[in-house]
Amino acid sequence: MLKIAVFGAGRIGRIHAQNVVAHPALRLEYLVDPGAHVGALAAQTGARVVDVHTALGDPDIAGVVVASPTALHLEHCAQALDAGKAVLCEKPVDLDAGRARAASAKLGARDARLLVGFNRRFDPHFSAARSRLMAGDVGKLESLHITSHDPAPPSPAYVRESGGLFKDMAIHDFDMARWLLGEQPTEVFAAASCLIDPGIGAAGDVDTAKTVLKTASGTLCVISNSRRSGYGYDQRIEAFGSAGAIRADNLLQSSVSTWSASGMSSDTFQNFFLDRYADAYRRELEHFVQVIGGRESPAISFDDGVAALTLAEAAAESLRTGRTVRVS
Amino acid sequence: MLKIAVFGAGRIGRIHAQNVVAHPALRLEYLVDPGAHVGALAAQTGARVVDVHTALGDPDIAGVVVASPTALHLEHCAQALDAGKAVLCEKPVDLDAGRARAASAKLGARDARLLVGFNRRFDPHFSAARSRLMAGDVGKLESLHITSHDPAPPSPAYVRESGGLFKDMAIHDFDMARWLLGEQPTEVFAAASCLIDPGIGAAGDVDTAKTVLKTASGTLCVISNSRRSGYGYDQRIEAFGSAGAIRADNLLQSSVSTWSASGMSSDTFQNFFLDRYADAYRRELEHFVQVIGGRESPAISFDDGVAALTLAEAAAESLRTGRTVRVS
Amino acid sequence: MLKIAVFGAGRIGRIHAQNVVAHPALRLEYLVDPGAHVGALAAQTGARVVDVHTALGDPDIAGVVVASPTALHLEHCAQALDAGKAVLCEKPVDLDAGRARAASAKLGARDARLLVGFNRRFDPHFSAARSRLMAGDVGKLESLHITSHDPAPPSPAYVRESGGLFKDMAIHDFDMARWLLGEQPTEVFAAASCLIDPGIGAAGDVDTAKTVLKTASGTLCVISNSRRSGYGYDQRIEAFGSAGAIRADNLLQSSVSTWSASGMSSDTFQNFFLDRYADAYRRELEHFVQVIGGRESPAISFDDGVAALTLAEAAAESLRTGRTVRVS
Amino acid sequence: MLKIAVFGAGRIGRIHAQNVVAHPALRLEYLVDPGAHVGALAAQTGARVVDVHTALGDPDIAGVVVASPTALHLEHCAQALDAGKAVLCEKPVDLDAGRARAASAKLGARDARLLVGFNRRFDPHFSAARSRLMAGDVGKLESLHITSHDPAPPSPAYVRESGGLFKDMAIHDFDMARWLLGEQPTEVFAAASCLIDPGIGAAGDVDTAKTVLKTASGTLCVISNSRRSGYGYDQRIEAFGSAGAIRADNLLQSSVSTWSASGMSSDTFQNFFLDRYADAYRRELEHFVQVIGGRESPAISFDDGVAALTLAEAAAESLRTGRTVRVS
Repeated sequence: MLKIAVFGAGRIGRIHAQNVVAHPALRLEYLVDPGAHVGALAAQTGARVVDVHTALGDPDIAGVVVASPTALHLEHCAQALDAGKAVLCEKPVDLDAGRARAASAKLGARDARLLVGFNRRFDPHFSAARSRLMAGDVGKLESLHITSHDPAPPSPAYVRESGGLFKDMAIHDFDMARWLLGEQPTEVFAAASCLIDPGIGAAGDVDTAKTVLKTASGTLCVISNSRRSGYGYDQRIEAFGSAGAIRADNLLQSSVSTWSASGMSSDTFQNFFLDRYADAYRRELEHFVQVIGGRESPAISFDDGVAALTLAEAAAESLRTGRTVRVS
Repeated sequence: MLKIAVFGAGRIGRIHAQNVVAHPALRLEYLVDPGAHVGALAAQTGARVVDVHTALGDPDIAGVVVASPTALHLEHCAQALDAGKAVLCEKPVDLDAGRARAASAKLGARDARLLVGFNRRFDPHFSAARSRLMAGDVGKLESLHITSHDPAPPSPAYVRESGGLFKDMAIHDFDMARWLLGEQPTEVFAAASCLIDPGIGAAGDVDTAKTVLKTASGTLCVISNSRRSGYGYDQRIEAFGSAGAIRADNLLQSSVSTWSASGMSSDTFQNFFLDRYADAYRRELEHFVQVIGGRESPAISFDDGVAALTLAEAAAESLRTGRTVRVS
Repeated sequence: MLKIAVFGAGRIGRIHAQNVVAHPALRLEYLVDPGAHVGALAAQTGARVVDVHTALGDPDIAGVVVASPTALHLEHCAQALDAGKAVLCEKPVDLDAGRARAASAKLGARDARLLVGFNRRFDPHFSAARSRLMAGDVGKLESLHITSHDPAPPSPAYVRESGGLFKDMAIHDFDMARWLLGEQPTEVFAAASCLIDPGIGAAGDVDTAKTVLKTASGTLCVISNSRRSGYGYDQRIEAFGSAGAIRADNLLQSSVSTWSASGMSSDTFQNFFLDRYADAYRRELEHFVQVIGGRESPAISFDDGVAALTLAEAAAESLRTGRTVRVS
Repeated sequence: MLKIAVFGAGRIGRIHAQNVVAHPALRLEYLVDPGAHVGALAAQTGARVVDVHTALGDPDIAGVVVASPTALHLEHCAQALDAGKAVLCEKPVDLDAGRARAASAKLGARDARLLVGFNRRFDPHFSAARSRLMAGDVGKLESLHITSHDPAPPSPAYVRESGGLFKDMAIHDFDMARWLLGEQPTEVFAAASCLIDPGIGAAGDVDTAKTVLKTASGTLCVISNSRRSGYGYDQRIEAFGSAGAIRADNLLQSSVSTWSASGMSSDTFQNFFLDRYADAYRRELEHFVQVIGGRESPAISFDDGVAALTLAEAAAESLRTGRTVRVS
């Protein structure tokens, strides 16, 4: 049994904590979170609530999941790596690409023990789509469409702390784009509006955006983001190649439909990431187990995290200027 | 231009008359129908209303579409064939299999000029399904499911004259079964109920039936008939082979769907045969043009009509006795 | 933690054992199986291999899962119930309806502690379909189609011991029919063939069957069974009501499809019951936990098991006689 | 019978000529085309080949379909309108927005007799989608995705004369966007590449483009264009509103699918506009008949044609500059 500490007992920390508990090879030893809400999770999982130093000082701890507030990610990662732990760090790695790049420069060999948690890469549907793409099933990739709409907007208070739509939400899609394009985007353009909640606009952010990426070879990518869908979690990709297209579609709650005088009506869509990415989080943790054991290299490096953050900053700059922003 | 006479100006006669008018190589010369309603169709199509003898006595008439009441089918076909015309005869060829068999015995060479109008064989969807089946795409056929549900029941008055569900409605499906099975059914079992309209029961008929056919080689076929669907015209086939299955599905009015908090909802289903089989009737007429010209043999012979009728009678007998009925 | 004993370490016993291990409120204490293969499962789960008497003599055992060979079901259920344990008994309850009815007569109050494992009732897709049906979404049920095709046939040796297609395989569908019809079938007809493996025929069984059920009110049900599909596990229902239809469809491995010059091609179908009914087995076990605790009555009683077995015997008799068999 | 002249016997002229012939209320009197290929169409349709003046000088000609080369559209429209004919003018109205605006200024009352042929507005699928949108089925529109990919690229020679991807191909999508947004786009951004045929690049054009439109109220629209799909004609819309989404999907050649060990495979996609928009062209002509008769105002005005052209020019400018272009 590998012993694990989870830093952060918020929404995402809870997912990881529960998956650690359910994993046959892992044991959740510690929860690190200064907030009162950690108590409930500790009671549910049987983990002990300790501070950072206690957790990292325990030589039996093999891995640390960093799901603390984003502002602490870099510090927590560095501390845990220095203590010799393997680290699974939640996205984004930071809210400032420059600071993240500086941190990257100091990582050195510790990089091989650090996995960034872009959970969607572990989604079986997106994995299957990418496998078909990489196998050349539709020839050479020419363009890519990513749809990523949340069911309902977060509060303006959340938005204010989040780093904004590009760093908080679209960052997943920037990583997906890089993963599927197989090539770095070199140009970024973004258009966006605040259409859903004026409070989001008052917080200085947008809630609806279309971002266009272009790679050196000319491959184009469109990312559609919305903080609201009205029908559930809209998470789709379409990859257009020289010989056809590959799609990963949304998922419904069941295969049931009703046929009536008004046509065919399905079951409801899966509502949000807890449903849609339940498997992805489990497969991500399984990969982390392999990283801890040194049997696999991290599928998503710190530099992948920096690259996604760089695209997010470029999109925000394009939005301010109305111009294409070049990324090196 | 080939000149055509259409016998019968009812629902089906009208379809044929309009298709003749729209066909670039055909001219609708005569309508034969003693009823007053023929006037409107004549006005619309520009055809002349005449009696049987006038129509058949005109040496320029190349083909006759027999869409008169079923009781007149045998007589009209014989008269038209004797007058040297090619004939497209609507289903069923008669309401009595014995009488139809006797008529068949007397046909002789005239058979090559007589096409029976099982329109579904010309449906592009069913044709495509059969092509895949005959090409061996799913190996050897093991069983076949035919779903054939009307949107809404006819009046009990219609039912009383119709010959009953098996001869009036399921006769299409018996022909489809023979066409797709590629082998004669030798055993017939039917179970049925009157669930939709007690008036249909009072007319001595059923409105909901499940018929099981078995061929000499053991292939099984289930036909589901209902006089009501609640959602439109349900016309589907599923063919299960040793290496997979082939389906032909229902059609919707458009490709539009709405995604909402209650899931995905499509457009309405095509309502009835005027929509679903519009192409089939046109392709059937096109084949008839080729039969008239001697370039193609009738795809559906009189004996095909007799065979479907024989199965209908066997189903009715099985329903009375609760036993499997053997058909030779 | 409730302590559980699992009787039988075969294919189904393994599923239950693993689900017990993964359930947060259960502990797998004992495995009972005289075969050598039990060792691997014991090693994997940490359970002890003991004999029936040891398992039932332990007062801490709260529930017993009976997944032993069918011939032992009645005896094991009786022993476990007599020992005061709650019991989850796999289907079929026995291979002889008369013997099962006799056992039923002796159950008395112990019935409230006995759950029969028709796992499909716990499938979320079928549950959702039934909820829509019971809510009257399509009016009054008029007919029901159940498709139940396995991906590939079992060995003739398995078939020989299985009780035959109706008791081994279709028994699930007889239970589904009863559950969805909301009314007892009173007439049974079956047609069947041996088309897939002559060895199955030599073992006295069939591998392809169509069964028609009719209830007192005239509702009709068709069950299609095949021991082979060529495409995976085909588990579908269609319920036709007075105002529309409800379907539960098959499941694919992912939502990915490829669009090419040959059309649209999906991912593969879920292969067999380990995939398709993984959730159902978990939900069934969760219900058993509630039954153990006395918080829920068994959703599927011993008499439900007897009723399905009675329909299976009627189907077999109909197959022998070619006649409709009445069931009371 | 209304007599019609068709100017231009190319690919689109042929469609209109054949639809005129098949329309019960129309008669194709003249074809106007200086090329030799007009002979075959004349022979097929029975129309006479004449020059512009003869056609327009015939007082019996009620309507003119202008499907001549784009460079002649403005001149032919003006001549026909001056001669008192109703006009159906193919897209684009011209290759120069300034010239088209000047022509618009001179139209005056003749505008009421001029229909611009953006055929997709008459497509039943897009019409149905728009009806749902306008009925408020998904609340207020927030963003719109238009996918418009041809099956295979035209020759570089065609491209060179075409006005380029934005004026030749995307012009349809600019019109669709205006029609569905219900509001004028005020900002345009385009990114594009030449990925399919270097000859298209050598002709100064692109073959793959993503265009982003934004309206004054902030609604966003993405148009995806490709000269090649590998699977047929990809013509889809997705409209995202405050309460859900509406989609119009692609069409397949039939409803047939095969289920096998590799999953489900459909029939092929409809290949190109002759299939997909056959109904749209017929419904467009039917509307033109109503315009000729003064019973309906043109659904698509000359100014609609100018507006689409203006967006096309803005997209081209954005492509050159890498900046958002404002459109008034």
